[in-house]
Amino acid sequence: MAGRRGGGGSGRAKPSGEGGAPGEAGSPHLAEAAGQDSASGQDGASGEDKLIARLFGSLATHPGALGLTDDAAFLTPPPGHDLILTKDALVAGVHFFPEDPPVSIARKAMRVNLSDLAAKGARPLGVLLAFAIPPDMDDAALAAFARGIGEDARDYGAPLLGGDTVKTPGPFTVSITALGAVPSGTMVKRSGARPGQAIVVTGSIGDGALGLALRLDPSRPGFRGLDPAEKAMLADRYLHPRPRLALAEALRAHASAAMDISDGLIGDTAKLLAVSGVGGTIEAASVPLSAAARAAVAAETALLETALTGGDDYEILATVPHDRLDALSMVATAAGFGLTVIGATHAVGPAAAPDGAGLTVRAPDGRALALSRRSFSHF
Amino acid sequence: MAGRRGGGGSGRAKPSGEGGAPGEAGSPHLAEAAGQDSASGQDGASGEDKLIARLFGSLATHPGALGLTDDAAFLTPPPGHDLILTKDALVAGVHFFPEDPPVSIARKAMRVNLSDLAAKGARPLGVLLAFAIPPDMDDAALAAFARGIGEDARDYGAPLLGGDTVKTPGPFTVSITALGAVPSGTMVKRSGARPGQAIVVTGSIGDGALGLALRLDPSRPGFRGLDPAEKAMLADRYLHPRPRLALAEALRAHASAAMDISDGLIGDTAKLLAVSGVGGTIEAASVPLSAAARAAVAAETALLETALTGGDDYEILATVPHDRLDALSMVATAAGFGLTVIGATHAVGPAAAPDGAGLTVRAPDGRALALSRRSFSHF
Repeated sequence: MAGRRGGGGSGRAKPSGEGGAPGEAGSPHLAEAAGQDSASGQDGASGEDKLIARLFGSLATHPGALGLTDDAAFLTPPPGHDLILTKDALVAGVHFFPEDPPVSIARKAMRVNLSDLAAKGARPLGVLLAFAIPPDMDDAALAAFARGIGEDARDYGAPLLGGDTVKTPGPFTVSITALGAVPSGTMVKRSGARPGQAIVVTGSIGDGALGLALRLDPSRPGFRGLDPAEKAMLADRYLHPRPRLALAEALRAHASAAMDISDGLIGDTAKLLAVSGVGGTIEAASVPLSAAARAAVAAETALLETALTGGDDYEILATVPHDRLDALSMVATAAGFGLTVIGATHAVGPAAAPDGAGLTVRAPDGRALALSRRSFSHF
Repeated sequence: MAGRRGGGGSGRAKPSGEGGAPGEAGSPHLAEAAGQDSASGQDGASGEDKLIARLFGSLATHPGALGLTDDAAFLTPPPGHDLILTKDALVAGVHFFPEDPPVSIARKAMRVNLSDLAAKGARPLGVLLAFAIPPDMDDAALAAFARGIGEDARDYGAPLLGGDTVKTPGPFTVSITALGAVPSGTMVKRSGARPGQAIVVTGSIGDGALGLALRLDPSRPGFRGLDPAEKAMLADRYLHPRPRLALAEALRAHASAAMDISDGLIGDTAKLLAVSGVGGTIEAASVPLSAAARAAVAAETALLETALTGGDDYEILATVPHDRLDALSMVATAAGFGLTVIGATHAVGPAAAPDGAGLTVRAPDGRALALSRRSFSHF
């Protein structure tokens, strides 16, 4: 990047940019250069330094962010509340395409974290943002990324509190820490599911995974018959998760356990059941699919497995006592995304948990569905 | 990494590992696989998955970490306190050497964040950790990294609350969010310096920067005369910052402004003065140097600039009313690192701030010191 300074007799190595020798270990904070205009002396802050300071400093409207000019932010937690803390990192080429619009990358980074808060029943308090900038990322991309962060911070009530910018010889990497709050002791955990409860999901399942599959191979049989609007919808659901924060309060009131679906409905349900110590059955025919997903699956049955195990849903998976279903469903319907019962929990027993996972997925014909994989893992 | 699963007819691309197409967007949390042993079905969690779960799950001793098996952690904030939040990211080849011992990388990542908390007067509450693992990082390195995190979490009272592990085709990258607490309204900001106060630093300045310079070129004139113990001390100070948490409470009581020195004494002092709206003078002869640093500077005067501007100090820089100096100094002395007055603040005026920076650095002969650079910036 232009403006990077090298040695100059100070004993500091010129950073190689090749992953070799570090040029420094001190890392400037997110927009520290904002306070440097009068302090930068003869070699001044670089253009990019100032750009970052301007772009992100202007987002720091929360008083505790101190204009991003301090080492840390402060936040006065709401009395009588627990903090809910989550931190997800995203890497170009692993979690998003390097050529994705920077504003979309920003949204994904914000929303996968806000989705965790929603699933725990929390309202957002703010976010901390760190990102590592590769050599080929230009000012326009940085500005678009900042715009995406700022718009989501505003729209979801999750102000930017602080963070860090660093350079990397590797891919663009983003880490966000989201902070939320729930009344003390009311976080909705994964571990609260009990036998005899409904398994529910918000919205529709599989659109994100199908959007990814479409992008990787638009010529697949399942996608040939989709109209442009359907293809655009799937592509958009892959790029732009929709954190279901509108359901957070109702989850606290009505759900026994919840999580957001990031790694596939089947695998994530298995995780929730396992940590709760219960079994469960999902009726595949009950899993809500969008019209586009239904059309894709009808044309290529293999895509049903993609939808059920593919991840990128960022819908809420929850277990709910039957007498609370109506109340929870009403809130989901009012919020526009709806709620669908896809199965039920049961006590774990040798007969009820044939594969040790505690989860059976039943195909429309009543037989256990054979899946080649349950969910995607990084390793 | 062994065990990474590819497509298998599910419409999921095999991750290229080359920064090309993402294979998934859902990111497992720090040790999510801990709950997956019974839920992983026929393709199971990989060995590395389980290793991470075991390594980091065992560190999650805080009840709010929920054994790292949930989407988020919870934390009950101490009543009557503000949260102090900081987030620093480190990239191999930029902030540390790729060949540094993983336990040292872990310590640096923890301590640069804890150092920010110390400078703000905060006591640690906990940390969130995200890291991106490159293809060539083996299990032994991961285990050593986890050990370093765990030891510092224990030693500094900053328990691991949660986080995320992801893969990267790029360099090893670590992001830590540290949370601390101060009694409400008592965070020590950068902006509180007033004219007529002492400028002080803890410990000694420049050891970290000289440790880096030594590592990059041990044959420099300044290093030839050092004995092995002196060289080892400088190298250690570069690798292992020492967060001055023992001074946090006293800073709240006595300092008007403070920050930790990460980007060089001169540049960081200029930043603090600028955001406080005051000027200042540093007497170079008063800046505390270790015996090793004094010997290096005596043998090669250019290394004085390295010490004053090089960064990696992670000492505390503060401004203190003169009548509070003794009280603050006593705590620093009792803690073993001591406190040194290196200059004073003054009102900003045309005569007092000749270079617009508001900071004058005076050489031992009384003249303003000419520095080729004030501090290192990433850009």
